[in-house]
Amino acid sequence: MIIDCHGHYTTSPPEHQAWRQAQLAALRDGTSVPPLPSISDDQIRESIETGQLRIQRERGTDLTIFSPRAASMAHHEADAAANAVWSAACNDQIHRVCNLFPRNFIGVCQLPQASGADPAGCIVELRRCVEELGFIGCNLNPDPSGGHWSGPPMTDYSWYPLYEALVELDVPAMIHVSSSCNPNFHATGAHYINGDTSVFMQLLQGDLFADFPTLKFIIPHGGGAVPYHWGRYRGLAQDMERPLLEKYLLNNVFFDTCVYHQPGAELLAKVIPAKNILFASETIGAVRGIDPQTGFHYDDTRRYIDAIPWLDDAERALIFEGNARTVYSRLTRQYALQTSPHGEAA
Amino acid sequence: MIIDCHGHYTTSPPEHQAWRQAQLAALRDGTSVPPLPSISDDQIRESIETGQLRIQRERGTDLTIFSPRAASMAHHEADAAANAVWSAACNDQIHRVCNLFPRNFIGVCQLPQASGADPAGCIVELRRCVEELGFIGCNLNPDPSGGHWSGPPMTDYSWYPLYEALVELDVPAMIHVSSSCNPNFHATGAHYINGDTSVFMQLLQGDLFADFPTLKFIIPHGGGAVPYHWGRYRGLAQDMERPLLEKYLLNNVFFDTCVYHQPGAELLAKVIPAKNILFASETIGAVRGIDPQTGFHYDDTRRYIDAIPWLDDAERALIFEGNARTVYSRLTRQYALQTSPHGEAA
Repeated sequence: MIIDCHGHYTTSPPEHQAWRQAQLAALRDGTSVPPLPSISDDQIRESIETGQLRIQRERGTDLTIFSPRAASMAHHEADAAANAVWSAACNDQIHRVCNLFPRNFIGVCQLPQASGADPAGCIVELRRCVEELGFIGCNLNPDPSGGHWSGPPMTDYSWYPLYEALVELDVPAMIHVSSSCNPNFHATGAHYINGDTSVFMQLLQGDLFADFPTLKFIIPHGGGAVPYHWGRYRGLAQDMERPLLEKYLLNNVFFDTCVYHQPGAELLAKVIPAKNILFASETIGAVRGIDPQTGFHYDDTRRYIDAIPWLDDAERALIFEGNARTVYSRLTRQYALQTSPHGEAA
Repeated sequence: MIIDCHGHYTTSPPEHQAWRQAQLAALRDGTSVPPLPSISDDQIRESIETGQLRIQRERGTDLTIFSPRAASMAHHEADAAANAVWSAACNDQIHRVCNLFPRNFIGVCQLPQASGADPAGCIVELRRCVEELGFIGCNLNPDPSGGHWSGPPMTDYSWYPLYEALVELDVPAMIHVSSSCNPNFHATGAHYINGDTSVFMQLLQGDLFADFPTLKFIIPHGGGAVPYHWGRYRGLAQDMERPLLEKYLLNNVFFDTCVYHQPGAELLAKVIPAKNILFASETIGAVRGIDPQTGFHYDDTRRYIDAIPWLDDAERALIFEGNARTVYSRLTRQYALQTSPHGEAA
């Protein structure tokens, strides 16, 4: 089984995003927020069948750990109350996808974070998604200010209540920024990668996993710059008298394979242990074209992993399936529930 | 000849940094700024002989393109007028190093940038350093706010007068942030790397080199995350209907080799053309320890380049010497001047 741990619902029916824009406009203008749009199962079915499901079939992957569109979380665009309505609408849509395609998608939720808001305010929605909707993880935005980075690092105590809930529910968080309102940072070309790199370094500086030994973070986009600069990070840890990174961080931190060329994927697999790498493509996502050097889509990351010559079958099985089942501890049970003859997504 | 294009004077006599702290304290307290400290040639000689020069000899490198300590630029800590005094002091010190060791060091200057200040204010000091002190380039901080990124991207017109001066003087700029006052960004573990990545993406978004076809930027630290995500950047450029990156950016953008492990250095040399890679170590810098996996210093980057099996002699000569002479167009002439029997650094 090939599990893609990083897919966003980037193809949701346009009414969905249009509602968010209407909500933001109403908040800005002091008018009343319109009711949520009515979106039919057929609309959702079509958006998936012509989008992510088609790609799963073309590329021979089986299950996508699926979450709302990351760029649309836009936690910086409204306050926690408004973002709670938006997050619930996004998560409910993911739940519908998982109910319509229970063999192909399993849910991960967006959290109703907001710039300057207490992360503890997200626990109610996290709990609803995990306990009621059968979701197996969340996306956690380390910069709800949208590129201003005005909040505290991820090791700050203000995050602890949320981490306690993650630990209690036994779900991991993918560290994933949203769009950027800072013109210095292109979203997918800079802000995403910087977010990954910055949080890894925050974790190296702090000692978060001493307090939360079972907390698990997935750092997407191949870990940002981290594997490329693995010597720098090993050296910084050493200069800072931290333990070896393998012991200090790699029981809790995992990287996905969203690196869109063969040399990058090979570097990742060379320096990071196979047990810490989760297959992912982020389709349909940041890069949509076909690489003229290969004739295949840049984000067809399965080809890169398949082509790494030194990986043995056991390592490839970890990357494609085993690690996802370990890191997303609820996956196996939830998938059985979704795919049992009389089951539902939750 | 092996030219290291990225060395900072991190070992300057302590009186130098102490003066900056005194200057900042005086500005804060409204008292008068003390006079610059008197530092003897012997002090400078010792700091270099026991530091960078010793390492040059140990590692068999010949010439370091030498600039003031990047973390100490700290453009966010004072206004442009105070930073002008500090930059001049730092640059004068580099000039003394080059005069004392004309065969081993050639100067690159710090600019008196400040958060919110017009970059054109730096031209006077740039011109002084190039025309009077014989410097061959500058370090340019893309975020003089020190981690808040509150200024405009590098493609903004406000930078243009400075770029015009760089073009006129025929000197390149190394894009290099300074320290970070944002707790989200560790300086050498996040802010430096993010700065590199962010600026590359700004250049991909904009079309700066259409306006300045001879302007040259060195993106240090191996180009941040860029080579690791080279497929992402090629794909983003393609989606954005930009030309191939080789044509669009690689006549003007160069990467250094400050990547502190063999797999990272190999990735760099695999995806980036040899003509765009400049040897560098950033010693004595971010990472000071010995890698237990190799028994050598993490920042002994010459070993990594030497050990890349597929580089031929011509490519290695470009990386070690030729590209530095091309990108720093004044290098060859200035070096001859410095090392002629009757010459001085300028």
